[in-house]
Amino acid sequence: MNIKNVTVAGAGVLGSQIAFQTAYKGFNVTVWVRSEASIERAKPKFAALEQTYVATLEAMKTNPAAFARGLASADASAEELDALKAKAHEALEGIRFTTSYEEAARDADLVIEAIAEDPAQKTAFYTELAKHLPEQTIVVTNSSTLLPSAFAESTGRPEKYLALHFANQIWQNNTAEVMGHQGTGEAAYREVVEFADAIGMVPLELHKEQPGYILNSMLVPFLSAAQALYATGVADPATIDKTWMLATGAPLGPFRILDIVGVTTAYNIVSMKPEAADPESVMGKVAAMLKEMIDAGKTGVAAGEGFYSYR
Amino acid sequence: MNIKNVTVAGAGVLGSQIAFQTAYKGFNVTVWVRSEASIERAKPKFAALEQTYVATLEAMKTNPAAFARGLASADASAEELDALKAKAHEALEGIRFTTSYEEAARDADLVIEAIAEDPAQKTAFYTELAKHLPEQTIVVTNSSTLLPSAFAESTGRPEKYLALHFANQIWQNNTAEVMGHQGTGEAAYREVVEFADAIGMVPLELHKEQPGYILNSMLVPFLSAAQALYATGVADPATIDKTWMLATGAPLGPFRILDIVGVTTAYNIVSMKPEAADPESVMGKVAAMLKEMIDAGKTGVAAGEGFYSYR
Repeated sequence: MNIKNVTVAGAGVLGSQIAFQTAYKGFNVTVWVRSEASIERAKPKFAALEQTYVATLEAMKTNPAAFARGLASADASAEELDALKAKAHEALEGIRFTTSYEEAARDADLVIEAIAEDPAQKTAFYTELAKHLPEQTIVVTNSSTLLPSAFAESTGRPEKYLALHFANQIWQNNTAEVMGHQGTGEAAYREVVEFADAIGMVPLELHKEQPGYILNSMLVPFLSAAQALYATGVADPATIDKTWMLATGAPLGPFRILDIVGVTTAYNIVSMKPEAADPESVMGKVAAMLKEMIDAGKTGVAAGEGFYSYR
Repeated sequence: MNIKNVTVAGAGVLGSQIAFQTAYKGFNVTVWVRSEASIERAKPKFAALEQTYVATLEAMKTNPAAFARGLASADASAEELDALKAKAHEALEGIRFTTSYEEAARDADLVIEAIAEDPAQKTAFYTELAKHLPEQTIVVTNSSTLLPSAFAESTGRPEKYLALHFANQIWQNNTAEVMGHQGTGEAAYREVVEFADAIGMVPLELHKEQPGYILNSMLVPFLSAAQALYATGVADPATIDKTWMLATGAPLGPFRILDIVGVTTAYNIVSMKPEAADPESVMGKVAAMLKEMIDAGKTGVAAGEGFYSYR
């Protein structure tokens, strides 16, 4: 693998986590954001991530339940965990910020795009970036909902462009779905798989472009079926969750998962289905049920209440 | 609850388990089958169940992983487990067999129908049974795929007829989905919920008729989405399973579950979708993939090979 210098574009929830994890694993990281104000907003996120990493590493000394797969091996000694705390501190110190495309592009072996889920903004970003980027630089997108084929041309390097899709809290949920578009070259794909592994992720390889990648391709119909059972009055969330957990041994049922994902996200997903426009349809009933919850402020774990109460 | 005498109709895989579990929990059990030959075929199944129960109870003394939820409480002492082994032996001794409708019906407080998944056979059974059944007897069906509303009239007691749906290996997988049709009375429904609890099941209450009950309403679209990812070449079974397990904490991914459910069952389910008739459609590709596995004898765990090898 020839990747040493990594630029992360965007310092939102995922962008900051990706940048911090990459620095923690010893790469040179530059964070590109749109403005000086964005840099000031980003810095506390990185300071908080350092504290989370240090606290987690400390907890891992004594509490097996604290184990975060992206941070260390499961059998790391107390000394090794202390050494990793120093790495977290070095990561925080080492990350550079810039608003300049030129600086973001100059020495980058890999650019990870994690800006807003807005096709126009992404296209504009790639187009400007391409003017400054060395020929060999690989570019990946962390987009959850947009496909790399939609932006490949705008990067000026379709064969070196693909998706690398992370999960929230990547130090713990360390999956990275690797997905090319039809024109992605094998060499760039393999480099990105190796890079994902090098930053403590489990690379999950997709052989072709798929909306929703692997996880959401299964999670969305599963959660949708659960919501349909509730919205049509077949059973209540607690019974549905219990059924799933008892039958499959899963630690969480669909409504616990929905509370973590967020009711607003679930509503946005169901609203995209044409059927949801008909209030008499199953999806229409699901949308109405979710809308009522959102209006009542019951948007999930983060709000203290969703299908369950967390107060 | 007024249920003491239970007749189980059918001694297939589930019928024999339901009858044995019911007897193990202290109910008087009569097993009705169609012929003397069926009785002879059934008896070794009950002997095998007794051995499984005894061996499991013995293992539960020392091995927490052996815990079977339907057999005892999690904190049962060695003495209590030994006493339960005696109950398993009594169950085997106490079960009566008959081929007579009259005998099956005479004293029954509850009839659990677990005969073949064939609407004509079920209708004929209920119609004949109704001629002999006391007025107050409740009748339930264990059918996985047929709805109680389809047979309610043939039982001659629609308000005392509903579904009580068990999972395979009920001493371990102790869920019981309780589902009425529109005409099921509340009293009969509550009796059946209490009965399910009394035989060591976790009753899962459905408030209206739903094909696939709760579990299969979620499991089928989930497994279908996973199979689509594989059949269309997006990713391989091991990667898809890994993605699901890492992201949700589940102990099994969809292809491990499919190997347990059986590839033939998965094929029968997908074949019922009209879309599967078109070989170019996603479901058509899933059906072709499953058909190829069946033709190669790779039908799942029971065959020693499915999506994974178990040899």
